[in-house]
Amino acid sequence: MPVISHRGAHMPPSPIRKLVPYADAAKQRGIQVYHLNIGQPDIETPKAILDAVRHADIQVLEYSHSAGFESYRRKLVEYYSRNGIAINHNQIIVTTGGSEAIAFGIQSCLDPGDEIIIPEPFYANYNGFSTAAGVRVVPIPSQIENGFALPPIEAFEQAVTTRTKAILICNPNNPTGYLYSREELELLRAICLKHDLFLFSDEAYREFCYDGRRHISALSLDGLEEHAILMDTISKRYSACGGRIGAFVTRNQQVLDTAMKFAQARLSPPSFAQILGEAAVDLPADYFDAVHAEYTARRDVLVQRLNAIPGVFCPNPGGAFYAMAKLPVRDSEAFCQWLLEEFSHEGSTVMMAPAGGFYASAGKGRDEVRLAYVLNEASIHHAMDCLEAALKVYKS
Amino acid sequence: MPVISHRGAHMPPSPIRKLVPYADAAKQRGIQVYHLNIGQPDIETPKAILDAVRHADIQVLEYSHSAGFESYRRKLVEYYSRNGIAINHNQIIVTTGGSEAIAFGIQSCLDPGDEIIIPEPFYANYNGFSTAAGVRVVPIPSQIENGFALPPIEAFEQAVTTRTKAILICNPNNPTGYLYSREELELLRAICLKHDLFLFSDEAYREFCYDGRRHISALSLDGLEEHAILMDTISKRYSACGGRIGAFVTRNQQVLDTAMKFAQARLSPPSFAQILGEAAVDLPADYFDAVHAEYTARRDVLVQRLNAIPGVFCPNPGGAFYAMAKLPVRDSEAFCQWLLEEFSHEGSTVMMAPAGGFYASAGKGRDEVRLAYVLNEASIHHAMDCLEAALKVYKS
Repeated sequence: MPVISHRGAHMPPSPIRKLVPYADAAKQRGIQVYHLNIGQPDIETPKAILDAVRHADIQVLEYSHSAGFESYRRKLVEYYSRNGIAINHNQIIVTTGGSEAIAFGIQSCLDPGDEIIIPEPFYANYNGFSTAAGVRVVPIPSQIENGFALPPIEAFEQAVTTRTKAILICNPNNPTGYLYSREELELLRAICLKHDLFLFSDEAYREFCYDGRRHISALSLDGLEEHAILMDTISKRYSACGGRIGAFVTRNQQVLDTAMKFAQARLSPPSFAQILGEAAVDLPADYFDAVHAEYTARRDVLVQRLNAIPGVFCPNPGGAFYAMAKLPVRDSEAFCQWLLEEFSHEGSTVMMAPAGGFYASAGKGRDEVRLAYVLNEASIHHAMDCLEAALKVYKS
Repeated sequence: MPVISHRGAHMPPSPIRKLVPYADAAKQRGIQVYHLNIGQPDIETPKAILDAVRHADIQVLEYSHSAGFESYRRKLVEYYSRNGIAINHNQIIVTTGGSEAIAFGIQSCLDPGDEIIIPEPFYANYNGFSTAAGVRVVPIPSQIENGFALPPIEAFEQAVTTRTKAILICNPNNPTGYLYSREELELLRAICLKHDLFLFSDEAYREFCYDGRRHISALSLDGLEEHAILMDTISKRYSACGGRIGAFVTRNQQVLDTAMKFAQARLSPPSFAQILGEAAVDLPADYFDAVHAEYTARRDVLVQRLNAIPGVFCPNPGGAFYAMAKLPVRDSEAFCQWLLEEFSHEGSTVMMAPAGGFYASAGKGRDEVRLAYVLNEASIHHAMDCLEAALKVYKS
């Protein structure tokens, strides 16, 4: 029997999926499960953009350009311009989800054995794409006590080696919800210039910033023209996760040329969802206002309810739709499994993501969970009722 | 300025795209260009399957399961069963085009430095995906004189080393159109069992077999349950290249588990085109009859016209929609460029793919071109008029 690759053996399994069989079993037993475990928004995909696909005049569903339809890339220039990012359509490669933008960045800029520095906790699939490419993730710890702010610059300095090629941030952050300030981004700018590192910036949640704060893109930082690479996606922005459309954006021509070779090898990004993405740029300017108000209200409920539970601490996230909470438990994975396997409160329970999967350092985040506020306020209240009741029983 | 990866520097550029600027310039000059250079079928995508997307009841465009919608995978079981391939829905991972199925196979089964044996000429992107993964392609020459039949078993034996992990075939073949016989597949079976190698079988063109011959899938070979991996796509089958839906199919559980980790890292394949693919399995049984008749007629015209030109030799392809022709020129790349840059016949010219890009061995195929018969018979006649006239001028 032929054997699989070492690369494949070392690929990390999805940390979010481990609990799925337990959730399925709970549902089989008639228990309602409140899903706060994954970043699948419940917000309806705007009808106008679904209609653009429904009414598209297609005779032959052809390959698009490997960089995406030119009409879509030109439309994206408008979108980015509105967000303070001045680029042209040749600086955009439309990708198959944000996932592929991350993969293109890693493959184009790093070789096996090279290192990428990522503040932890971080989106678990960064680890997957790095492992697939033979790249070593070097985590730098951020702390729940200060809301997962950027680790001090000294921590980055200490982590840089001759193999370091890039720093990767997610802003606003998944899983922490942290929104980086201009000062923090300036620190990153300085260290990237000093050590000649790429700055990969995953800005999937750009529109999800709260409390009147504005998002600052890595592509708007002066002097990083050759260093900054934006990894983007329409998945969360327009509740269009299944479309699988993202973007790889940079002003570095050599990186663009290189990423294009990877893009050509896979031929083209999906055509249907490019039509959807192109229509999305023309959504009314107030589209995000309602979305924004909804997520702000949800976040406020979630964070207030969490912090009202004895022994629970949840910093107030400035962006995205995730919150990290510290629970009075020793092993959040065991607790989350127990919630699904053994617990119910008035016929319901709650599913959360144990935070261990978001840390590269073994043993970190063992008493933390990530909660995605992708359910309406009433459901969040019910979910928090479950959690509150559960912690009373679990502790005793 | 930070530098790109060695992997990126070594990624082969798309051999088909090199001539695109010359074609664009020719069109600018008002010249009609007959595109026989790429495998983008002109056949209309069946309205019924486009309608399935148009009428899909979608409120939230969600991620699908990482292996694809279960309903689609169950439907694919029907499709494969009709084609003599007995598998269950858990042995299928729906992929983002056939491209991703190829990438999953290489990443799951081969490590950097490992070797994959491929009869050449071959689909150029196999080289791209191998390079991206640090895998070495070991080409074994097939010959235009015998229509690009499977190279003799001795050639495989000589190519096997301790680093060999897999043999990759495309059946029916792109770029040669060759359809492997049962005897040839049995030879491959024997060598894979003897050396414990994976057999990767790209069967994108399964339905395109001519002259009453039947396609034999690698998954239908006895004793290869742990070795055979099918890489599939709906792109050519239903003229749905832009959908980006394919499939990775194997009975090897360890390989499935491994590929699923890569699949989970990229979250899910595109939802819209999965709906299209699911509907396609229910197309009337006679759908392929008309497609088949059309391609057979085109092939016959193309091959007859090519062989009628002095100095040209084109073996009759048994499948797919490609033909390879040997031309009386020293450098087919220069000739193809000249056709676009300097030649026209009654206001038209023809674009073909120089075959050099389909060979891994330097210098091979220099006098060959690949022609995709993706235009109607009248256009193929016009294109052949151009080629015939061009060769008269070019030679003198």
